[in-house]
Amino acid sequence: MFNCHKKQICGKIIKNKEGDLMNNEKLINIELDDKNDRLIIIDQTKIPGEISKINIQNKEDLWDAIYYLKVRGAPAIGIAAAYGMYLCCKKIDTDNYNVFFEEAKKIKDYIGSSRPTAVNLFWALDRMERCIENNKNSSILEIKSALKNEADKILMEDIENNKKICEFGIKLFTKPGMGVLTHCNAGPLATSRYGTAQGVILMAHERGLSPRVYVDETRPLLQGARLTAFEMQYAGVDATLICDNMAAIVMKQGLVDLVLFGADRIAANGDTANKIGSLGVAILAKHFNIPVYSVAPTSTIDINCPSGEFIHIEERKAEEVTTLWYEKPMAPKGIKVYNPAFDVTDNSLLSGIITEYGILRPPFSESIKKALNK
Amino acid sequence: MFNCHKKQICGKIIKNKEGDLMNNEKLINIELDDKNDRLIIIDQTKIPGEISKINIQNKEDLWDAIYYLKVRGAPAIGIAAAYGMYLCCKKIDTDNYNVFFEEAKKIKDYIGSSRPTAVNLFWALDRMERCIENNKNSSILEIKSALKNEADKILMEDIENNKKICEFGIKLFTKPGMGVLTHCNAGPLATSRYGTAQGVILMAHERGLSPRVYVDETRPLLQGARLTAFEMQYAGVDATLICDNMAAIVMKQGLVDLVLFGADRIAANGDTANKIGSLGVAILAKHFNIPVYSVAPTSTIDINCPSGEFIHIEERKAEEVTTLWYEKPMAPKGIKVYNPAFDVTDNSLLSGIITEYGILRPPFSESIKKALNK
Repeated sequence: MFNCHKKQICGKIIKNKEGDLMNNEKLINIELDDKNDRLIIIDQTKIPGEISKINIQNKEDLWDAIYYLKVRGAPAIGIAAAYGMYLCCKKIDTDNYNVFFEEAKKIKDYIGSSRPTAVNLFWALDRMERCIENNKNSSILEIKSALKNEADKILMEDIENNKKICEFGIKLFTKPGMGVLTHCNAGPLATSRYGTAQGVILMAHERGLSPRVYVDETRPLLQGARLTAFEMQYAGVDATLICDNMAAIVMKQGLVDLVLFGADRIAANGDTANKIGSLGVAILAKHFNIPVYSVAPTSTIDINCPSGEFIHIEERKAEEVTTLWYEKPMAPKGIKVYNPAFDVTDNSLLSGIITEYGILRPPFSESIKKALNK
Repeated sequence: MFNCHKKQICGKIIKNKEGDLMNNEKLINIELDDKNDRLIIIDQTKIPGEISKINIQNKEDLWDAIYYLKVRGAPAIGIAAAYGMYLCCKKIDTDNYNVFFEEAKKIKDYIGSSRPTAVNLFWALDRMERCIENNKNSSILEIKSALKNEADKILMEDIENNKKICEFGIKLFTKPGMGVLTHCNAGPLATSRYGTAQGVILMAHERGLSPRVYVDETRPLLQGARLTAFEMQYAGVDATLICDNMAAIVMKQGLVDLVLFGADRIAANGDTANKIGSLGVAILAKHFNIPVYSVAPTSTIDINCPSGEFIHIEERKAEEVTTLWYEKPMAPKGIKVYNPAFDVTDNSLLSGIITEYGILRPPFSESIKKALNK
């Protein structure tokens, strides 16, 4: 039985800008140390074994951190890339805009090459590039200052969005001690503060709603076991780790009142692509009459994608299933493996989509349109 | 893409007593070498890395093999224990029945202590003890011979039962190339020949029905990845390994026509306890209108257990989820873990129970009663 409160395990508790107790010193995954020209990040590859902070002091460090998944989670990658680009641009020694822009562009391309499929990485880098262009007529010093502000904005917008999402989400906690099942990781490590699916749980915990959380380990990459379980334990949430195939039994035993998971991409009709296994969890929940909510900012909605059928399912390497993490291979050599990165949960299985504009309800085609017009 | 026929990978193909091509030399998991006073078993802890045969020459070897799961699977344990007891009793040097019986009893108790919770171990050892008692008036030499016959009978009954079960099971393969999803392992390694759930697939393959099999890896002990995937590959079956949380997506993609899994214990109403994750698979299959069959001999039915509610769920160690097989722990130290060994699939989720007396159909309370009266 683990029942450790964060005060006992997490060292110094500080109140941060937002005044939230939860966001103590150690759980800030990305932090700009402007005075010393460095970005301090929690190395996620070392979690759950240790909280190891590393310094990012140049573009090579940042490339490395993104490539080797030391920083992961779409929002976190965007934030790290933005601050990293600011720090690199800060060092460009010129008074000439064109020289500055060309150098900045090289930095941007280099950082972008660390994970070419990460949409949020390019979204953040593009914002930084536009920021330079929009300040074309300012001094280089002013442009550098604008870049810092832009990176700060990217961070603060994420924090604000997550907080809004979580505020809506915790309304689902209608009584203390409710059971929540969650899958994969979209918590504070993957974002800025709180996170989305796991953020709702963390905020519910902060507000004294005492959620009991069942954390799917989330094979094959084990984001649940490694990251979500860590975040929950760190915050002092009553969390229980289960294998993915144990979701049905905890639901059957009446231990789950609510399912919360994130979203990689939401189609215009509400069909939701998320980490592999989300679809299964949603079907099980439906069987047991447990409501399922996808939790994501509206930026995740792809209004040009009419339905889940149009979402291409990326397949990943067999080795993630057969050998990764293990002391020795756990499946016969040469066995065929199917390893889809995510699956699509049909809108009919969702009770709602929790966004920064509120909880969208079926019919989603309409509620999504309304939310995007806000 | 793995598409290797057994002729290419499995070395010498021999026809065994039953004349089945599948049962070639290497896949016989337990073999008595009476002339050399030894039992030769495939060390299952070495699978899937290698097929390593080890000699069991005394009760200590056997204890070790059972305790360390070198031999596992209820029927296989029973068969190994029976032959092991025969070999040990064969060495008892006396002409006095009472001395013989006392020595045999000590051997039995010692072997039984290797896995005190394995029902089939005691079932087999009790049969061997009764065999001695039933031959009380025979010579010690005759008793020893009777013990060999009893062990042979235990083996042959298992083979016969499995074959009958599989013959009924393959009737579900109404066309070539059908997709089957299976969970855990109850194949030839866990039994004698064929097995139950996986046996049906292996026989369908032998009969040219070309099943396409999706093998759940079956966390946390990975019996699917390690053993079932191995057995399927070994026999040349078109098998694809998936993580447990990928069952929903392969069903959604229309790749699965049939779900087959074994049973640890079946209640009088058909509720079926089987490896953790079976319940989830059955619910997903119901959602996608895919029939689910539990495959087991009628000895698995506990007529005194009215329904699944009365089946106690054994919990296993947290370490199986957090550290077992891994290079380093994959979950934070001290995290609470729920690790039930199995779950119960409600009879309403089953299309049938495939037994040696045929496929039992709902209402199971009636079809089970009928089968047990045969």
